Amino acid sequence: MKKRDVYLDNMPLDEAKKLFFEALKDTGALKPKKPEILDVRKALGRITAEPVFAKISSPHYLAAAMDGIAVAAKDTFGADEKNPVILKEGVHFKYVDTGDPIPEGFDAVIMIEEVHPLGNGEVEIIKACSPWDNIRGIGEDIVATELIVPENHRLRPQDLGALLAGGHVQVAVRKKPVVSIIPTGTELVAPGTELKPGDIIEYNSAMLAGFIEEWGAEAQVTDKVADDYERIKEKVKEFLEKSDVIIINAGSSAGSEDFTSRCISELGRLIVHGVAIRPGKPVALGIIGEKPVLGIPGYPVSAALTMELFAKPLLYIMQGVPAPEAEKIDAVMTRRVVSPIGTEEFLRVKLGRIGERVCASPLSRGAGVTMSLVRADGIVRIPALKEGFEAGERVEVELLKRRHEIENTVVIIGSHDITIDLLATEVKKYYQELNISSAHVGSMGGIMALKRGECHMAGIHLLDPETGEYNVSYIKRYLPDKSIVLVNLVRRQQGIMVQKGNPKGIQGIQDLRRPDVLFINRQKGAGTRLLLDLKLKELGISPGEIRGYEREEYTHMAVAAAVAGGRADACLGILAAARALGLDFIPVSPEEYDLAVPEEYFHMDSVQKIMHVINTAEFKQKVEALGGYDTRDTGKIK
Amino acid sequence: MKKRDVYLDNMPLDEAKKLFFEALKDTGALKPKKPEILDVRKALGRITAEPVFAKISSPHYLAAAMDGIAVAAKDTFGADEKNPVILKEGVHFKYVDTGDPIPEGFDAVIMIEEVHPLGNGEVEIIKACSPWDNIRGIGEDIVATELIVPENHRLRPQDLGALLAGGHVQVAVRKKPVVSIIPTGTELVAPGTELKPGDIIEYNSAMLAGFIEEWGAEAQVTDKVADDYERIKEKVKEFLEKSDVIIINAGSSAGSEDFTSRCISELGRLIVHGVAIRPGKPVALGIIGEKPVLGIPGYPVSAALTMELFAKPLLYIMQGVPAPEAEKIDAVMTRRVVSPIGTEEFLRVKLGRIGERVCASPLSRGAGVTMSLVRADGIVRIPALKEGFEAGERVEVELLKRRHEIENTVVIIGSHDITIDLLATEVKKYYQELNISSAHVGSMGGIMALKRGECHMAGIHLLDPETGEYNVSYIKRYLPDKSIVLVNLVRRQQGIMVQKGNPKGIQGIQDLRRPDVLFINRQKGAGTRLLLDLKLKELGISPGEIRGYEREEYTHMAVAAAVAGGRADACLGILAAARALGLDFIPVSPEEYDLAVPEEYFHMDSVQKIMHVINTAEFKQKVEALGGYDTRDTGKIK
Repeated sequence: MKKRDVYLDNMPLDEAKKLFFEALKDTGALKPKKPEILDVRKALGRITAEPVFAKISSPHYLAAAMDGIAVAAKDTFGADEKNPVILKEGVHFKYVDTGDPIPEGFDAVIMIEEVHPLGNGEVEIIKACSPWDNIRGIGEDIVATELIVPENHRLRPQDLGALLAGGHVQVAVRKKPVVSIIPTGTELVAPGTELKPGDIIEYNSAMLAGFIEEWGAEAQVTDKVADDYERIKEKVKEFLEKSDVIIINAGSSAGSEDFTSRCISELGRLIVHGVAIRPGKPVALGIIGEKPVLGIPGYPVSAALTMELFAKPLLYIMQGVPAPEAEKIDAVMTRRVVSPIGTEEFLRVKLGRIGERVCASPLSRGAGVTMSLVRADGIVRIPALKEGFEAGERVEVELLKRRHEIENTVVIIGSHDITIDLLATEVKKYYQELNISSAHVGSMGGIMALKRGECHMAGIHLLDPETGEYNVSYIKRYLPDKSIVLVNLVRRQQGIMVQKGNPKGIQGIQDLRRPDVLFINRQKGAGTRLLLDLKLKELGISPGEIRGYEREEYTHMAVAAAVAGGRADACLGILAAARALGLDFIPVSPEEYDLAVPEEYFHMDSVQKIMHVINTAEFKQKVEALGGYDTRDTGKIK
Repeated sequence: MKKRDVYLDNMPLDEAKKLFFEALKDTGALKPKKPEILDVRKALGRITAEPVFAKISSPHYLAAAMDGIAVAAKDTFGADEKNPVILKEGVHFKYVDTGDPIPEGFDAVIMIEEVHPLGNGEVEIIKACSPWDNIRGIGEDIVATELIVPENHRLRPQDLGALLAGGHVQVAVRKKPVVSIIPTGTELVAPGTELKPGDIIEYNSAMLAGFIEEWGAEAQVTDKVADDYERIKEKVKEFLEKSDVIIINAGSSAGSEDFTSRCISELGRLIVHGVAIRPGKPVALGIIGEKPVLGIPGYPVSAALTMELFAKPLLYIMQGVPAPEAEKIDAVMTRRVVSPIGTEEFLRVKLGRIGERVCASPLSRGAGVTMSLVRADGIVRIPALKEGFEAGERVEVELLKRRHEIENTVVIIGSHDITIDLLATEVKKYYQELNISSAHVGSMGGIMALKRGECHMAGIHLLDPETGEYNVSYIKRYLPDKSIVLVNLVRRQQGIMVQKGNPKGIQGIQDLRRPDVLFINRQKGAGTRLLLDLKLKELGISPGEIRGYEREEYTHMAVAAAVAGGRADACLGILAAARALGLDFIPVSPEEYDLAVPEEYFHMDSVQKIMHVINTAEFKQKVEALGGYDTRDTGKIK
């Protein structure tokens, strides 16, 4: 057995931050970076390293503020409608355009609209003017020596204009902090490599580099390093001089091949190793040769969070500007979330405004679920001393999107169908500002979400065994007080998915009770599960006879993936999912997948836009192309 | 006299937008740009040109979710504290690290913390596990064929990670629209050129290019073109093929050398020329050979506004994404603003939260005042049919900064002093998140602003002729109900500023009444003007005897600039202003410049931070270095 260092601290977040930044204070790493001199025209978005004062005034001469004629005001005194004054070009006036210098001997400009040419180089005017009329004084815009922009100011387009106008061709801006990212792990392979089991695509560095760039710093990604202590150490030493910050990803945990903390300890000082946060606990923070070194965990969500908590404030301090604060919004949790005491959790949520309130639905909490970062609209912090949130509890959400994006989001909760993803994509083509947020909690979950006012519509496919009718009776039973519009999205084929070639020779529902067949089920409340239960009942099979009946997944794709990956022999789901993963499909039952929309939301502009897209021929064609769908009733109100 | 085309339309903004964008619809210019294929790692911030679905699942194999040992769950059944199970390495278990594939024959992982090594390659466990415990299923993060990002989506760091994880090395993103900016004007000179009267630094193109870049497009600035119709036409023709949009700046007005609209008419179609907006009226919009061509006015504020109104929506449409909406905030106007009926005005304002409300103070409305763009915190729209706003009226402000920047702003209104600019700069060094907003309306204006609750503090220097004391009696008289803390900022020297070498031989206030001396005054309510009035009274001189007494400027620097530029022979002001512009200075009177702070604001965290900076030795040294200041009482409460 290899040497293992299973010790990992569980330090509160605030304490970890304080320790790390206090230690950095002694190193000079927190001082704003030295300036570099740039052409003003190349300095957009950069941070000024010193206040900039105007070298010259703008205008730097007396200038015509209008197109017109330059005159001596005294020559116009007494002019009115009855006593027009006649002026001679070259003697009493000169034509000037906006910006022209005022010729010697003149002290006012009359705008061209008030000048009546008489021919012969003469003009008539019927209104006197005063000295300095329509003349821009020296320094009217910028007075020499005036402050144009202060230190630590991010340069915007108008600042570049003002700097040039104030006589500056160059400007001193802060050098960008250089952050080296060292990807470590023998299992890592470059994107595009043919994959073998155990290979992991090295994609974290692209995400981390992206964050670093968005925070105004410069990222350089080194070659990946195998899990070899000496090589990692060599790589850190190699890049220490060329970097302001080093990030080692990953190897910060306490496994047999996690060398980061040891490397930091040996080459410098390990300040923090293990913080009471979820995800992101195994983060390591230290200093090597005056340079901050961060051991960022390997799981992508842990990596993103620990970067946000530790690297972001560090990089902003180095640039001399405050890190932008996340906008916050009040919301209501749609589901109960339990979180361990003693750990501060950062929960990713989807958001949507339903009527008067904003609803927050928790996303997957797995540290390895990159897609939860992609899908998240915001982050809810669960304090270390709180056990979580009840459904319906008020929470504060740090927004990852802009507020108006949340306001323009239609929330669909319920059963999963691939056409919902397609709809989200198609809607963007017609209405770029409109977003669809979908959560997959099964048909009954969708009906309950409607009941609690947590979504604009629910996707459902619930067969009433007594009438053979879909959805209508469930709406009547569970939502008796609501006026609901039921719109057909698709008719679709449900069936059994099995591995390609059907190695177990499954022919129908009855074969699922065979002892050599391992099943994987959908979650309770899913329409697909209700369909299975109905079929089992018809055949007189008890659920206990099906091996794997209790194993649950939340989407068609998830059960299909379990079959494709060999974790199960069969599952129930739609043809499109089987096709997507190359599985064989045994049809079981056609069904109607409808959208249930409360009438109060049905007439919302955003919902009507979605209805419009559902009714386009293009959408229907794309649905048919997925296979297993019938669009004859698509868009029809039941 | 040259040919003049003085005709300019005055089309309402909405109509102009509609006409222009309707006309563009027929050209194909509004279709999103064709895609280009980029390495995912280079695609940060770019817009997807198509939806991207996962090519592979992630994980693509069964993987250990923890560091620990891979086991067959059945081998652990029955294990508890009293009946530990002993497992042998290589037979019953293998060590695995997070991410390792599950070796053949095993179906669960026990985390390392729950494994007790016994030596001899044996371990003891005291808890049974279930199949699939601590194993990441195939597709747990991303299922092959799943939608990763939709079309028209701006790629964020986490999206890059998910795309790579989903098997994509490249991604199709929209080509950036290419915008050519043609600076026109014989008077333009490149930044850095030695200036002659009439020369104008060509700085608009840097600002316009900056906006274009911020809006996601690519700007190319051509060589400047003289005001020569044929040359401008040639330049447009030269760049038409290489551009998606052409911007001609300026020459869109109706002056003798404004050729833009003629050029658009001759080469294509002129759609709009003259819009009822202020600033920005002379904008010209047209189409040449299917390409949008914008004639953007030359004044920088007009240029910035017309770009925002016409170029920004155009460029976003070309990229297939909605233009980000400005955040809006409710505020109260601090001053009356009169605006002509029939013109929609875009007023630039400074903002600050004073107690419960946000106050909006109008900035210079001049189209040529670049600094008003630099200083603005927001824009107030004055509708075409509104005559303006009364002081105290509620207005909606489109924010140019983030809301929390406004919340972290301390508003100082009152007399102008250069040390206020210095203070704003120094404060940023200590407290990067803190902003100072200052408006110059004179000492009495500052006291009135305190009275109306429009600022956190006022800068004042008001001599009581009866007591010889500064400021105290004015506070008592005008703010009897408020508890005010009076803090000395500086003692300073007021005097007469004259041109270098004092060509008119001015010795003191008495010389201002000489008929050969042209004076320029500060505005009513300015402490400096009150000082002048007092001195005149002492000398028995009536204001009417002073030529130029009625000509007003708002700051020390503005009157100094008038003297430096020859528009006046003398003015009253502080030594620092004279030094800054190289003027001679005849001392008149020392005075006390104080900050008057209502007690309710004095204890605010932000105000205390400012007091801290005022009291630093560094600030005082920098004030002394300006000349004409005495810091013996700086920071002392009176």
